Amino acid sequence: MLSVSQRGQLLPPSPYRHLTPYAEAARQRGLTVHPLNIGQPDIETPPLMRAAVQQADIRVLEYGPSAGFDSYRQTLAAYYQRQRLNVTADDIIVTTGGSEAISFALLACLNPGDEFIVPEPFYGPYQGFAVATDTRLVAVSSYLEDDFALPPVAAFEALITPRTRAILLCNPNNPTGYVYGRAELEQLAGLCLRHNLYLLADEAYREFCYDGAFTSALELPGAEQHVVLIDTISKRYSACGARIGALVTKNKALRDVVFKLAQLRVCPPGLGQLLAQAAADLPADYFDHTKAEYQARRDLMVRRLQAMPGVRCPEPRGAFYVLCHLPVDDAGRFAQWLLEDFDLRGETIMVSPAAGFYATPGLGRQQMRLAYVVSHDIIERAMNCLEAALQQYPGRQE
Amino acid sequence: MLSVSQRGQLLPPSPYRHLTPYAEAARQRGLTVHPLNIGQPDIETPPLMRAAVQQADIRVLEYGPSAGFDSYRQTLAAYYQRQRLNVTADDIIVTTGGSEAISFALLACLNPGDEFIVPEPFYGPYQGFAVATDTRLVAVSSYLEDDFALPPVAAFEALITPRTRAILLCNPNNPTGYVYGRAELEQLAGLCLRHNLYLLADEAYREFCYDGAFTSALELPGAEQHVVLIDTISKRYSACGARIGALVTKNKALRDVVFKLAQLRVCPPGLGQLLAQAAADLPADYFDHTKAEYQARRDLMVRRLQAMPGVRCPEPRGAFYVLCHLPVDDAGRFAQWLLEDFDLRGETIMVSPAAGFYATPGLGRQQMRLAYVVSHDIIERAMNCLEAALQQYPGRQE
Repeated sequence: MLSVSQRGQLLPPSPYRHLTPYAEAARQRGLTVHPLNIGQPDIETPPLMRAAVQQADIRVLEYGPSAGFDSYRQTLAAYYQRQRLNVTADDIIVTTGGSEAISFALLACLNPGDEFIVPEPFYGPYQGFAVATDTRLVAVSSYLEDDFALPPVAAFEALITPRTRAILLCNPNNPTGYVYGRAELEQLAGLCLRHNLYLLADEAYREFCYDGAFTSALELPGAEQHVVLIDTISKRYSACGARIGALVTKNKALRDVVFKLAQLRVCPPGLGQLLAQAAADLPADYFDHTKAEYQARRDLMVRRLQAMPGVRCPEPRGAFYVLCHLPVDDAGRFAQWLLEDFDLRGETIMVSPAAGFYATPGLGRQQMRLAYVVSHDIIERAMNCLEAALQQYPGRQE
Repeated sequence: MLSVSQRGQLLPPSPYRHLTPYAEAARQRGLTVHPLNIGQPDIETPPLMRAAVQQADIRVLEYGPSAGFDSYRQTLAAYYQRQRLNVTADDIIVTTGGSEAISFALLACLNPGDEFIVPEPFYGPYQGFAVATDTRLVAVSSYLEDDFALPPVAAFEALITPRTRAILLCNPNNPTGYVYGRAELEQLAGLCLRHNLYLLADEAYREFCYDGAFTSALELPGAEQHVVLIDTISKRYSACGARIGALVTKNKALRDVVFKLAQLRVCPPGLGQLLAQAAADLPADYFDHTKAEYQARRDLMVRRLQAMPGVRCPEPRGAFYVLCHLPVDDAGRFAQWLLEDFDLRGETIMVSPAAGFYATPGLGRQQMRLAYVVSHDIIERAMNCLEAALQQYPGRQE
């Protein structure tokens, strides 16, 4: 019998999408299903970025350079430099979304069988990228009771083996919304230096910090050769479909390997790069507006959640997610029940049960992630649904 | 010491680009360097495809479905159906270029350490994809003396081990221009059925056959569950920079795995898909024009090459490459000499030495690949250069 690869079988299905058939069925029954389950921003992609593609004069849509258009790398370097980061165009390899940067980083830093440590809960696909690159994701638990702060360095240290090659940190964090501060990052950098590990920093949400400044892994003194920044324009400019990301590192030997990986797939998308490059022309206060909008939504959602009996919700300080504890037997069952057996005047919500963000079985069973990528009005309606649902749900459990 | 991964070190550099610094230096000395080294078509990307992107009304450039836009998969299925291929939208997963389809196919069909057999010379990056997916490329030699026809099935059979999982065939072939006929494909399909192997068919150049009909691997009777089609719009519509390809298979179990890989990177590029979808509106005779143009260029280039003493050049029947034997000691040295020490009235050429297309050391040393993706006038000038260069080259060897 012709069989698929074992690694193919081991690939986990997306934790975001298994509820989709239930949501479709609910919509077919006439319900309005508010989508709080995925991080698809509703904020408009800046018109001047879209215009850059529409007005481009392209006779032949040619292959571009494997590392990305020089012009785009220059403007991206300037973006980092405005944040006082020591980045030049040479340090940047443009990737097909942040996803490709994650793949490239794992392939370039780790051999088959090598391990990387990630605080859980984590962005679900990390587990799949580990399978696809034949590496092993080792989770160190962070806890809702601690606001999902960085686990103690000793907890990382206890997991280090001769096969450990890297620590992967998403900051600001998806799914928790936690923003790791300078002191935490410096502890982690110290650990990487002592144990000779790469620090893979996924900063997809770097522009979305609501309470104080953001510290990039690129700022950490002495860690320059260890840090690999994984970045993307997806969330920053509401341009998820462009599939433009970047891998940034001052480590020349590593960059040379990443460049060979980039050559294999010839080049990142050309049209998306045109769009991304136009971000350089946005007004200086562009992020002030988008941040203020997300912050107001966060405040509203957190206030509503914290007012619901039995719900425990640390205040997220970044990204656009809330990870909260629910008084239910099982958040996966509850999420399905919301779509199959519940509505409030014809409305219900779709949420992400948190179990898919954990590697340790059993953790996150009573947690769910909500994305505040919808309007204030929808947040109010969604919270009304949730409040009513928690009162009616037969599996309620304090 | 922090080191890069061993697989990273093993990745071969691009065989196409190592002459680039010499070409740049030649241009800086004022020479005109005609680029025959890479398969970047000069034919215009169809204006109506570009217009589809320019006129798109997009408020938020959102994530799309992981398998590609439904609407695009429908039009792509219709394209295959017009060629009487049994393909529905469900069989298609849209990829980020043909490159991603190659990666997905290897990851889904092969485990780490598994082997796939490829006729050499082959598209250079296959070797790198093997390294990146931790699989092993096993080459079966084809020969210029046979016009690079399919090696005897017995030669494939001799290389099959318990780790062999697939045969990868590029048809029409890059770099040889050979078009495998129905009888050859049926032999290969029989082999795959007998030994339980996947047949990975890279048909990037499927529209470019100049002497008779093209047979797709999807037409092979009885092989439906074994065939994985790797496709791309890059060459077909001169849209290399769009990065839109596809993986097509009737094998549901395999497609489920590929879909999980597709979910990991969320979705293929949105703008590129808009462009690709508009290909459905091209006139029915679109390929007649582009094929006629490439065919005329091929005829010109082959006629000129065959008239040069000591050059042996089988007539390629597809794609847009010529792989020929040169009366030189070493085609790599000759290619460099062309850029460093030669010019004909201020002009010279950049070519691809063929050694990078072979896995077996020593093979292809006296061969080079030329791409006829330039105008008739440039082909004439380039052939004038080559003719003069072969007379002057100090390493000439019959």
